[in-house]
Amino acid sequence: MAHSEFDIIHRYFSHPSASARAPALGLGDDCALIDLPSSSRWAVTTDTLVEEVHFHPDTDPERLGHKVLAVSLSDLAAMGATPAYATLALTLPRVDEQWLAAFSDGFFRLADLFGVTLIGGDTTRGPRSITAMLIGELPAGRGLTRSGAKPGDLIFVSGTLGDAAGALAALAGAGGDPPLPLRLRLERPEPRVGLGQALLDVASSAIDLSDGLAQDLGHVLGASGVGATVRVDRLPLSEALRAQVPYPEHLALALSGGEDYELCLTAPADRRVQVVQCGRRCGVPITEIGFISEQAGLRLLDCDGYPFPLSRSGYEHFSHET
Amino acid sequence: MAHSEFDIIHRYFSHPSASARAPALGLGDDCALIDLPSSSRWAVTTDTLVEEVHFHPDTDPERLGHKVLAVSLSDLAAMGATPAYATLALTLPRVDEQWLAAFSDGFFRLADLFGVTLIGGDTTRGPRSITAMLIGELPAGRGLTRSGAKPGDLIFVSGTLGDAAGALAALAGAGGDPPLPLRLRLERPEPRVGLGQALLDVASSAIDLSDGLAQDLGHVLGASGVGATVRVDRLPLSEALRAQVPYPEHLALALSGGEDYELCLTAPADRRVQVVQCGRRCGVPITEIGFISEQAGLRLLDCDGYPFPLSRSGYEHFSHET
Repeated sequence: MAHSEFDIIHRYFSHPSASARAPALGLGDDCALIDLPSSSRWAVTTDTLVEEVHFHPDTDPERLGHKVLAVSLSDLAAMGATPAYATLALTLPRVDEQWLAAFSDGFFRLADLFGVTLIGGDTTRGPRSITAMLIGELPAGRGLTRSGAKPGDLIFVSGTLGDAAGALAALAGAGGDPPLPLRLRLERPEPRVGLGQALLDVASSAIDLSDGLAQDLGHVLGASGVGATVRVDRLPLSEALRAQVPYPEHLALALSGGEDYELCLTAPADRRVQVVQCGRRCGVPITEIGFISEQAGLRLLDCDGYPFPLSRSGYEHFSHET
Repeated sequence: MAHSEFDIIHRYFSHPSASARAPALGLGDDCALIDLPSSSRWAVTTDTLVEEVHFHPDTDPERLGHKVLAVSLSDLAAMGATPAYATLALTLPRVDEQWLAAFSDGFFRLADLFGVTLIGGDTTRGPRSITAMLIGELPAGRGLTRSGAKPGDLIFVSGTLGDAAGALAALAGAGGDPPLPLRLRLERPEPRVGLGQALLDVASSAIDLSDGLAQDLGHVLGASGVGATVRVDRLPLSEALRAQVPYPEHLALALSGGEDYELCLTAPADRRVQVVQCGRRCGVPITEIGFISEQAGLRLLDCDGYPFPLSRSGYEHFSHET
């Protein structure tokens, strides 16, 4: 960017610190400086959204500013971390003040909500893409990893599944605009930050659902060296998705559609009540969908206990790229 | 990226930790986890390189892997920080294994040299661009900011100036391939990490020269609320640049050409010897080029003490975009 344009952009990203601990030095030097609290640890995550790949050029910039932060907040949530700092690398084809104002508005609205301070970044000219890096805090020695699931643990998911994929399917097909409840799930995902923090002492493993339940739960199974059985009839589906997509396609979306940004977690069976209470405290419904076993692999069962083949649900069709 | 491609990419970025403190959890979960040392602070910086804007599509991928890390290491150097951790967001139009092997080779060669561990990142499909985020460590309460320059301080620069701009000018003009010494300055910059650390107790301010001396020193003057006088005849120029570019154009490149990634620093006059000794210990020549004064603005003088107008040096022509 030419430097006058730079100044314009900078204007949209100067914003008071929202972190519990303000950075010692924020935007405007070679680096940001952060004084470290003793005996704690940091969780660090990075996500990129690319135009035409992760979002449509016409996407409401306010929702895009929300989403790029929400996606990384969801990773912190899956670790049980408390959000603290962000950097933002913004590549834009040109300086569009209206776009920047709306984008930064969406970004900071969510940042303020979760106590995130923007401490740095880079602004470059090029095909539009946005990379957010987030830092969250955890107590010393803690964190909800993917590798802690044990045979006998129960499997839970937060919220409802498949809504974002339902919106994507409507946008891609001839169905026209998706109903607003589905569209908002795609464009304004709500990261389960409070729930992740509440689960830190309760869950044995957690992951956020960005690529679909089958694939993301698969990562947990692989990292933990275990297998799982999931009852597809228990998958929590929204009224909006049921109204929009018939059986069994809505199950396909719930199993393999991405971008729900709900949490999938495991916990010992004797903590079932605690898990549900965590959800209640955070105002997020939590549903038990299956259990962990020693035998490797993911087994899907229908309501009668018969195997539910992923292929029947159109899995391949909805297998998407990240 | 489809997930089989993902696995291919992941293969090139699994690499043993090079940090003094290995991360508690590295690649492969929702976040990386880092245990924080007590009573210290972190320096955090982010840089993006975009194809066609910051590098040519034909750029040797090994040099590009080097450069994307070098650019951020240079920001840590300008803070006096010790490099520790990196994340890498890689957007690629397709999976090219040969390209990835060379890119990761260049990246990790430099990372290992400076004790940097890659702790995370994201891989997406799209127009090629690379964002690196680096974390460095500093003693509690310390850091070389841009705002510490005081009237009476001397101004120094490391190495030679204008070489990268000389290479860019040759590539842009009809002059054909630039001489290798200039080309290497552009494509394999050497971040002054050791020098920055050595200067932590000596310099009053520092900045790395990414946008050209005039502009970057201008940032220091603005942040410190001071002005400066620089003797253009004292600017350190390489033999290669003098041979390639005549007077006064080579001064224009030294003043306003970007991407040298040398350090510009200020220090009280009674620390002149210490500054030069820092350079000697690190094997980097350091040149005194002027002094800080109360009167705002940057004054350029020629060898006879007459004003040297930036316009005469072709400043506007070389004013480039970042």
